[in-house]
Order: sequence, then C-alpha cells, then structure tokens
Amino acid sequence: MLGGARSGKSRYAQARAEAIAGRHTLVATAEARDAEMRDRIARHRADRDQRWRTVEAPRDLAAAIDAANGADAVALVDCLTIWISNLMLAEADIDAATRDLCEAIQRFEGQLILVANEVGLGIVPDNALARRFRDEAGRANQAVAAAAQEVQMIFAGLPQRLK
Amino acid sequence: MLGGARSGKSRYAQARAEAIAGRHTLVATAEARDAEMRDRIARHRADRDQRWRTVEAPRDLAAAIDAANGADAVALVDCLTIWISNLMLAEADIDAATRDLCEAIQRFEGQLILVANEVGLGIVPDNALARRFRDEAGRANQAVAAAAQEVQMIFAGLPQRLK
Amino acid sequence: MLGGARSGKSRYAQARAEAIAGRHTLVATAEARDAEMRDRIARHRADRDQRWRTVEAPRDLAAAIDAANGADAVALVDCLTIWISNLMLAEADIDAATRDLCEAIQRFEGQLILVANEVGLGIVPDNALARRFRDEAGRANQAVAAAAQEVQMIFAGLPQRLK
Repeated sequence: MLGGARSGKSRYAQARAEAIAGRHTLVATAEARDAEMRDRIARHRADRDQRWRTVEAPRDLAAAIDAANGADAVALVDCLTIWISNLMLAEADIDAATRDLCEAIQRFEGQLILVANEVGLGIVPDNALARRFRDEAGRANQAVAAAAQEVQMIFAGLPQRLK
Repeated sequence: MLGGARSGKSRYAQARAEAIAGRHTLVATAEARDAEMRDRIARHRADRDQRWRTVEAPRDLAAAIDAANGADAVALVDCLTIWISNLMLAEADIDAATRDLCEAIQRFEGQLILVANEVGLGIVPDNALARRFRDEAGRANQAVAAAAQEVQMIFAGLPQRLK
Repeated sequence: MLGGARSGKSRYAQARAEAIAGRHTLVATAEARDAEMRDRIARHRADRDQRWRTVEAPRDLAAAIDAANGADAVALVDCLTIWISNLMLAEADIDAATRDLCEAIQRFEGQLILVANEVGLGIVPDNALARRFRDEAGRANQAVAAAAQEVQMIFAGLPQRLK
C-alpha cells in the first residue's frame, strides 16, 4: 500500500487486514523518539482494535516478519519509509536489508500487507541527506512493489490498483 | 478534483463546470495578500469567461456554498487547500469546519465541484507548521473525498477517476 | 513517462524503447556540474546497453530531437524537468522553448519517449525560485502530455496509463 502523508493508507491497510480472518500482528517500525512521534503512535494504536498484537521492528524487519509468519498469519508492516530512515540513521546497508526484506516477503505463508510512503513527488530537497533518503525510499518501494502480488496507491483515502 | 501544483486541476474543474448549463458561481478561497498571489488570482480570473459570478470565502466556506445553492446552481470551489491554510492562520477548528463543509456538500442541490491540492507526496517538511498543514490538508481531502460522488486525480492535465 | 524521483520512470522508459527495433538515441539533458550529478549520469549510462548513441542537449532540446529524427528512429529524452531547470538558470523563454519542443514532438517520424518528473505533489516550497520552477515544470508537463499520444505515470516502477 503506497500513499502520501495523511492519505489514509494506514487505515486502508488496516481495514484490508481486519477483513481477513487469522492471527493479526502489527509490525511497527516507528520509534517514539519525541513527543510528536509518541502522539502519532498513540493515535494509530487507538485506531486499532484488540485483536492486534504489536511488535516493534525499527531495523530488523525481515526477522520480525519471519517471527510473525504462519499459515493463518495476517501481518501489517507500518511503515517501510520510517524503517528506511531508521536504517539510514544507523548507517546500515539498505540494499542488503531490502533484499532480506524481499526474501521474507516471499517466505511469508499468510497474508502480509506493507505500508510505504511515496516521497518523490515534490521539489528536489535542498539538503543531500533528504535527497539520499528520497532515493533510498524510492528504490525500496520499487523492490517491494516488484516482490508484492498486489500494489495499491492511496490518494485521499481512495485506493488505486497499480498491480 | 485533486491534483498537484500546476497539474491543470483548476482548468479541468472549470471546463467540467462550464459543460453544465446553469447559474455558475466561483467560490474563491484565496486572499490577495501579496503581489504573487494577486498575480495568480488575476491570471485565473482572466481564464474564466463572463458567465461566472465570483464570491470570496477565505474561511466561511460552508456558508458560501449554502448561499450559492439551488437546483440550477453550478458551483466551483477553488481551492480547499488554501482554505485550510487560511483556517490554520486564523487558529480555527479545522475538524469542525471540515464537518460543516461536508454537510454543505451533502445539502447542495445543484452541481458542486471542489478543487484541492495533494501535498503529501514529497519529503517530510523540516518545520512543524508545514507538517501540521500537510496533515490537516490530507485529512480534509479524505473527508471531502468520502462525501463526494466523484473524485478525479489530475496529473499533467489528465484526469484519473479515483471514485 | 511521468513519475517521481526514483520511481523507476527512466528504467521503464528505456525498457519500452529497447523493445522497439530501430536506431536508438538517448537525448540527455543533465549537465555533469558536480560530483553527485556525475555519479547519477554514470549510473544511468551503465544501465544502458551498447545500442544507444547519447547526445547531450541541456538547452536546445527541439534541435536535438530533430537531429535524431527518422522513420526508424527510437529516441528517449531524459529528462524534461532537468531541461526546464537548465532553461531557468539560463533565463531562457520557457514558454517559447516548450512550444518548440511540442512542434519537434509532432514532427518526429519514429518513436519518441520523453521522461519528466512530477514535482508538484509536496508542500509549497519556501523559496520563490522553487515555486517558479514547480510552476514551469508543471506547465511544461501539461503541454507535452497534450502533445503526446500516450502518457504513463510511474509509481514504484509500476506504470499507470493516463492517456
């Protein structure tokens, strides 16, 4: 599920996941580093019902997806773009991590839904770090979209199927 | 009608409105606060023909839509995103204003076309005010898209139907 | 071919061009002004196979397209958005240059694929130059999309036909 900020992509992804019977796991990539982020996380958590188990995976996403795996598993990863920024902060190898992620996607036996931000449709950012982030996020989105069976782009809460 | 800056969304919306017979009202939300904005407003005004009556509604949009209402009314609101920024500057309750707007949309008996910017597809803005604006604009777009019967996304002058 | 940064639009455009038999010309608009740009150009060049002849056209794009013309010509212009920024730096008449470009598109007898960035879907930029660039790029995209027979929007490597 691709979309812009406040496009309704998380809500749409959650609704899709909740329509599937099974064992629901939210794999959250955000770390509550400041008050604004803590607010966002709390708001998202309040939007979800009791069936969800939450695991945090700010960096080792492939392992968290593997741990949630199972034939009756319904896992929601929210979101890839924050994961990319966490990896950049940790100076990790993003290409290798993306390959690991794509392999975990292929291994997953249940239903796996991943949420990502599309961040490349504004003006070229002033600073080199933001440009690198934009490149890394775009590259990861392409790799994950290639590995996925279905890709939806969300605008204003409305999904459009890309694949 | 959703779209980016200079996507042709206003022109497309206007052409759609002019293809409908009736009493045409443009509900303009922009205020001519500086020279750049005055130029934009004058350019948009020059693009429209004589049939249009223009009313300005920088903040009280629901009332302006109600005032333009009627069975033969064709109203064009351009645009919601500037309206949101006006409300933020005035420290108004944007959720309440958006609810009022959605009710006015439901009440409208003629044809009502609203133009909005999609602003959430770039890099996360540096400053907190821009982030809040992006969130508010995205939330309002979702609410209005849910209330609308038809939603088009415009890229490079070309519409794509989302709903 | 419209798309965001790192959306896979160049790769998609190149694959489309390589699927067509003929005499392949890449019309590159980027100038290698700094190390970051030189890296990008070298990476793109390494992605292409031997069949491509490359010509550089940082400003006089219509002439470069005319020079590549021919019944068996397959030309790829990458990209319009850098060309617009080159014209802005040179203080050229962008409307006139866009008209010349659209005429060269109409004159082209072979297959011509143009790549452009969509840059209008983020927050309004802080500085006036970036706002003007966004407007110019959006206007050029509209004009070229109107002149083109087919328009694809690329998200995460996945094309969506707009026209």
